[in-house]
Amino acid sequence: MEAEPVLIGGAWRKALAPKGSFAAINPATGERLKSRYPVSSFGDIDAALQASRRAASELRSVPPVNIAAFLYAYADRIEKRGDALVKTASLETALPEEPRLRSVELPRTTDQLRQAAAACRDRSWCRATIDAKNNIRSKHGPLGGAVVIFGPGNFPFAFNPAAGGDFAAAVASGNPVIAKAHPGHPGTTKIFAEAALEILKESNLPRGMVQLLYHFEPEDGLTLAAHPLTGATAFTGSRPSGLRLKKAADKAGKPVYLEMSSLNPVILLPGSLEERSDEIAQELFTSCTMGSGQFCTKPGLVILKQGLRSEAFFHRLLTLFRQAPAGILLGQNTLNRLREAIAGMARLGAEIVTGNTVPDLPGYRLDNTLLRISGERFLEHPRELQIEAFGSVSLVVFAEDDDRMMKILEVLDGDLTGAIYSDSRDKDEGLYKRIEPVLRLNVGRLLNDKMPTGVAISPAMSHGGPFPATGHPGFTSVGIPASLLRFSALHCYDNVRARRLPEEIRDKNPTGRMWRFIDGEWTRRDL
Amino acid sequence: MEAEPVLIGGAWRKALAPKGSFAAINPATGERLKSRYPVSSFGDIDAALQASRRAASELRSVPPVNIAAFLYAYADRIEKRGDALVKTASLETALPEEPRLRSVELPRTTDQLRQAAAACRDRSWCRATIDAKNNIRSKHGPLGGAVVIFGPGNFPFAFNPAAGGDFAAAVASGNPVIAKAHPGHPGTTKIFAEAALEILKESNLPRGMVQLLYHFEPEDGLTLAAHPLTGATAFTGSRPSGLRLKKAADKAGKPVYLEMSSLNPVILLPGSLEERSDEIAQELFTSCTMGSGQFCTKPGLVILKQGLRSEAFFHRLLTLFRQAPAGILLGQNTLNRLREAIAGMARLGAEIVTGNTVPDLPGYRLDNTLLRISGERFLEHPRELQIEAFGSVSLVVFAEDDDRMMKILEVLDGDLTGAIYSDSRDKDEGLYKRIEPVLRLNVGRLLNDKMPTGVAISPAMSHGGPFPATGHPGFTSVGIPASLLRFSALHCYDNVRARRLPEEIRDKNPTGRMWRFIDGEWTRRDL
Repeated sequence: MEAEPVLIGGAWRKALAPKGSFAAINPATGERLKSRYPVSSFGDIDAALQASRRAASELRSVPPVNIAAFLYAYADRIEKRGDALVKTASLETALPEEPRLRSVELPRTTDQLRQAAAACRDRSWCRATIDAKNNIRSKHGPLGGAVVIFGPGNFPFAFNPAAGGDFAAAVASGNPVIAKAHPGHPGTTKIFAEAALEILKESNLPRGMVQLLYHFEPEDGLTLAAHPLTGATAFTGSRPSGLRLKKAADKAGKPVYLEMSSLNPVILLPGSLEERSDEIAQELFTSCTMGSGQFCTKPGLVILKQGLRSEAFFHRLLTLFRQAPAGILLGQNTLNRLREAIAGMARLGAEIVTGNTVPDLPGYRLDNTLLRISGERFLEHPRELQIEAFGSVSLVVFAEDDDRMMKILEVLDGDLTGAIYSDSRDKDEGLYKRIEPVLRLNVGRLLNDKMPTGVAISPAMSHGGPFPATGHPGFTSVGIPASLLRFSALHCYDNVRARRLPEEIRDKNPTGRMWRFIDGEWTRRDL
Repeated sequence: MEAEPVLIGGAWRKALAPKGSFAAINPATGERLKSRYPVSSFGDIDAALQASRRAASELRSVPPVNIAAFLYAYADRIEKRGDALVKTASLETALPEEPRLRSVELPRTTDQLRQAAAACRDRSWCRATIDAKNNIRSKHGPLGGAVVIFGPGNFPFAFNPAAGGDFAAAVASGNPVIAKAHPGHPGTTKIFAEAALEILKESNLPRGMVQLLYHFEPEDGLTLAAHPLTGATAFTGSRPSGLRLKKAADKAGKPVYLEMSSLNPVILLPGSLEERSDEIAQELFTSCTMGSGQFCTKPGLVILKQGLRSEAFFHRLLTLFRQAPAGILLGQNTLNRLREAIAGMARLGAEIVTGNTVPDLPGYRLDNTLLRISGERFLEHPRELQIEAFGSVSLVVFAEDDDRMMKILEVLDGDLTGAIYSDSRDKDEGLYKRIEPVLRLNVGRLLNDKMPTGVAISPAMSHGGPFPATGHPGFTSVGIPASLLRFSALHCYDNVRARRLPEEIRDKNPTGRMWRFIDGEWTRRDL
C-alpha cells in the first residue's frame, strides 16, 4: 500500500526516497490502522525549508488582516470537518468522541485559532513602542524562517502541530509553519493540513505557509531545529527528546520552546482536609484520571502532612482510584514508559498501594495507580522520584512535619503548576505563607483550591515554568496574545523614514484600535 | 602586597584561598597599576551564591519603592564619587576623562539607573495581566536566584556589572546581582560596589543584593552560569567566551543573555554618495574611530556599489582615517586580537589600504585601518570575513551590481545593527525596497541615514539582534522597561485568594498610575 503524500510548498506530493513508512494503531484494540504514512528523508525536510523561506519572505508583505482571515476561515473549516476529525482522532488515540473530542477539545482548538486571529487583526500583540522625540520605534516581528512544531500525542486537536496553540501563535505572528505530526495521530493531522491548504488556495496567501511531514528520524529532527532556515522550534513531549532538540537548537543559536514534563505538585494543608477531605479526594481523583491521566498538568505528586486525617483522605482517594476502570492509554510506548516510571518509584521506596496491574480488557491500559512514600524516604532520592508518570498515577508524600514539607518543596524541580489547598477560614495561613514563596518560584502557574488540569485560553494564563518543565521561565505556550511573542524578534527602527516604517509604528494608528506604547503611555491614539 | 577584598554577603572580606592575583594596566603607558585583585576560587563563588539565595528570598517581600529608592540613591552617590570614578576609569582604560567619561558615560550610567528606578517604582514593566472573569492573573516576577553579570571592557561605567544597564535591569526587576568585574577596570568596579554597599547599609535592603568578585577561572564561570542557585547570566564580551557560557547555561536550562559581537553593516546606496559623499565619509569616520573603535556598534563593514563615486568616497574616507592619530586600545589583548582579525581579512583577499601599523607613541595603539575587497571576493569567504575587529578598523566591500549587493546581504550573520544611507529625494527607493527585507531580519536595529554607534536609552531601543550577535532575537539589553523582562519569570496566579496576590495584580491598582492589561485593555484603573 502506498504511503500518504506529504504537504510541501503548497502541494500534496509523494515523499522523496522515504526511510520507510508507518501506520497509526488504535489504542483501544491494538489494531494497526489502514493508512500508511512516510518517514521522510532529509530531502523532504530540505524542500519544506526552502518553501518556507519563500513563504516567510512573501508573508512580510501580507496585511495582518489577511492572515487573520485565514485563521478565522480555517477555524470554520475545521468545524465543518468536525465529524471526520473526531472520528479519526478517536480511532487513532482512543480518546472518547464525547465529550472530550467533540465538545471539549475541538471547540477549544477553534476558539484558540479565533483568539489568535483576533490578536493578529488587532496587532496589539506586537508591542509597538514609539519614542517620538528620538524617532526610535520598535515592534515585535516575524522570525523570517519556519516555525517547526513538534506536537504531542495527548492532544490530537488542541496541540496539533497543524492546528493547535503553537500553530495558531506562529501563524498569527506572521511565520510559516512546518508541522511535524505526532506518529500517534497522522490521519487527524492530515485532515487539518488538508483543510488549511484549502483555505490557503482560496486566499492569496503563500501556499508554503503550512506544510506537513508525518515523521522523520530523530537525527533529522535535530538538524532541522538547528537549520539556518529555521526560525524557531516548538516542542511538546518527553524530556529526553526535548533535551536533545534543545541542545541542537541552542548550539545553533535558534530559539526553541519546549514543554518537557511536569509533576504538578498539589499540596494539601491540614485545614483543607479537616474541612473538606472527601471533596478534595474527588477533585484530585478526577484530575488524576481524566484523559487517562495523560495531561501535562496532571497532579503527579501530592504532598500532605502525616496523621490520621491524611490517612483517611488517602483511604478515600484509594477507594476512588480502585473503583474506577482503567482508561485507555495512547499506545504501547506510553504503557511501557508508565510502568517503568512506576517501577522506578517503587525501587526508590514508594509503596504501590493500588494499581500497576494490566486489566483483562482490550487496549493499552493500566489500572489506576496510587503510590505513597514518607517525606523522609522521598528526600533520600528527591530527583529520581520526580519522573513524570504519564497516566493515571500519582505519588502521595506524607511529610512528617512542616519543616519536612518545606524541605520537600525546596528540592522540587521546575514545574508547570503547583496547587495549594487550604482551610477556607485561613487556619492554614501560617503554613501557606511559609511554603508559597518556595513553590511560587518553582512553577509557572500557582493555584489555590483548584486542580491544575484545566488550562484556560486566557490572556493571563501561563502554561510554562522553570526548567525542566520548559526551556525558559519567561514564556507561555497557552494564552493569547503572550504566546505569539515566542515566535518573534524585536525589530527596532532608528530614524527610519516615515513611509518606510511598518504600519504598526507609523504616526497613525493603523486600526484605530491597536494598543501602542507611545512615550511611556499605552494608548490607542495616533501620534 | 595584599589583594583587595571581595564583596560577599554584605561585607568586604579577603578572598578565600585565591588562585592568584592580578593588577590592571594603564593602557596609555603599559604600566601596571598598584592595587592587586584576587582571582577567586570557587569558595568565593559559592559563598556569593549562598548569600544571593538569602537576598533573593528577602527581596520578595521588599516593596518596589524601596528598591527604586536604592537605585535613585545609588545614582546620586555615583555622582558624588564622580571624580574618583572618572580618574580611576581613565587610568585603567585610557578612555579620556573629558568628554567621554565625565560628560558622556557617567551621566548615561546614572540616567540608566534612574530610569530603572522609575520603572521599578512605576511597576508597569511587569506586565500585570488580569482575566477577571476566570480570576486568572499574571505578572513577571524575579527569578529567585542571582543574576550573574559579566561586564565588558569597553564601557567601564555604562555596562559595568555593578552599575551599568544589566545591573540596573536585574535590580529593578527584583533580583540580587553577582557582579564579575572586567579585569581591565577592577578599581572602577570596586568604587561602584563600595558606593552600592553604603546605600544598602543606609537602607533596609538585603545586603547580599550586590556582590562583587573581580576574577575567576573560566571553568568556574561556566559552573556559576549553570549553578542551581543562579537565576540568569548576562554577558557582554567576545564571541568565544560568550558561546562557552551559553553552552554551559543552556545545558542547565538557565536563561543566559549574551552580546557577543557584531559587524554593524552600513550600506551606502548610490544616491546618498551622489548627494552627500563627504558628509557621509565624515560620519562614518567618526563612528569608526570614536572610543578607538571599541564599540559593539562600530561599523565594521561598509557595503557600496563599485564605481567612480564610490572610489571618490573611499578616497575621502581614507584621508580621514590617515590623518587621525591612532587612539589608545584597552589593552595588549585587544591589540593582539585586532591585529589577528586584520591579518585574517587580509589572508582572505581584503586589501589593507591604510593602517595596521603600530605608531611610535606610548600605549597600546594601532593606526586607523581601512580595508577593501570586491563583492566577488567577499563572497568567497563571507563567514570568515565577518570577524569583529574591535578597534578603528573597517572593511569596505565594493559590490559589482545590485544583485551582488543582495547576495552579500543574504550571507550576513545576525548583527546588532544595520544602517542604510540613501538619497533624500528617494532616487534609491527601488534598491532600498529590495535590500530592506533582507537586512531587517538580520539585525536588531535598522537605521536610516544615521551611524549606529549612538545607543539611546529609550523604551523603543533594541540593543539586541539575531544570533550570533546575541543569544535570542526577542530581547534587548538597553531600553527600559523592556530590558528588565530578561531577568524575570512569568508568574501566573490561578484562583489565588485576593489578599494572597502580589499587589500588582490585586483589584486595586497599587500605585494608581501603573499600567495593567485588564480584560484586553491597557488601563490604569482599578478592577
